[in-house]
Amino acid sequence: MSAATAQILLPSDDAAPTTRDRIVETAARSFQEIGYQKTTVADIARTLKMSPANVYRFFESKKAINEAVVEQLTGEIEAMIAAIADAPKLGAAERLTRIVTALHDDCRRRFEAHPRVHEMVEAAMSESWGVCQAHVDRIGAVFTRVVADGVREGAFTVADPKSAAACLHAGITRYCHPMLVGRQPNAIEPPLPVMIAFLLGALRPAGD
Amino acid sequence: MSAATAQILLPSDDAAPTTRDRIVETAARSFQEIGYQKTTVADIARTLKMSPANVYRFFESKKAINEAVVEQLTGEIEAMIAAIADAPKLGAAERLTRIVTALHDDCRRRFEAHPRVHEMVEAAMSESWGVCQAHVDRIGAVFTRVVADGVREGAFTVADPKSAAACLHAGITRYCHPMLVGRQPNAIEPPLPVMIAFLLGALRPAGD
Repeated sequence: MSAATAQILLPSDDAAPTTRDRIVETAARSFQEIGYQKTTVADIARTLKMSPANVYRFFESKKAINEAVVEQLTGEIEAMIAAIADAPKLGAAERLTRIVTALHDDCRRRFEAHPRVHEMVEAAMSESWGVCQAHVDRIGAVFTRVVADGVREGAFTVADPKSAAACLHAGITRYCHPMLVGRQPNAIEPPLPVMIAFLLGALRPAGD
Repeated sequence: MSAATAQILLPSDDAAPTTRDRIVETAARSFQEIGYQKTTVADIARTLKMSPANVYRFFESKKAINEAVVEQLTGEIEAMIAAIADAPKLGAAERLTRIVTALHDDCRRRFEAHPRVHEMVEAAMSESWGVCQAHVDRIGAVFTRVVADGVREGAFTVADPKSAAACLHAGITRYCHPMLVGRQPNAIEPPLPVMIAFLLGALRPAGD
């Protein structure tokens, strides 16, 4: 269920959005601390001292709750990198470097704090691909904006900023994908700065 | 347990290697078809009509069996790409393109045939990192060889072929990692040929 559908299902009383927020917040905590697999809608209702039926007034399934949780989490990440993309007085290469580093550090921090967070991500990838795809698209849009800035600055020479941005984003999967970073975070080769330099090199091709 | 340790534990009778091979083969089938989590050493023994104690003469744990299974599977992949790397009369860029495409296609095929194969990989990544790292190193060595050929041919201009090969390998994670490719294999963006062209562009930098 998308956020838009959830909105339609919301009861019209004023307290409704707050209840919805509390469900998402409680579910997020439980998914991260106990794990997505082991958390039931009844557990979430119990923590909130409400009936499961009341939770189902807001979300039709655990999957729908996970979509709202993942949308909130990915929204935080997107806001973080949009702020870097908008940083004044920084060149495009420097902004891309900071964005990729921030994505990697954020992913590592979340896994160190909550080792079970990958269960939510796995569930979203297999049951709610649209939510994942929308996040990938929004991150891609930020990369596209900075790559296009770099082309205007003369720092990059790429024919299609959107395509180059998609390549850049796919190229950092090993460093920023929640299903991979949590395992052996210190064993990722090559070190991130080496990888960033390599990828930035692809934005300045000699032509062939 | 490494393959070398397994070798030391082998009983000295002539039939031993065959029994070991049969255990690995049966375990591989069960891990792929039933899943790593649901397969027990007792299940493997039952299929082979032997006692669990006999399986434990060859492998000290299910984890040790998985290491042997993963070593066999990764060995097949390494042999496949080594054959491409050695193809005569093909330029380095063409060989890299064929290697990456083969890795991607092989990964997709394995998941289409056995959707539970990722459980083995996840177990190996969390319990037997050494086996995974050795595979990454061997793939990296093949990439390094072809990148170095490309430098000699004048097709690539990189200062450190080993480092560039590691970047290339990390850069294709989205397309070749068994934990990712199985989910939404048709939704990977950008298409692989676009990604390969981008990464090959990084091997021919204008310099900065």
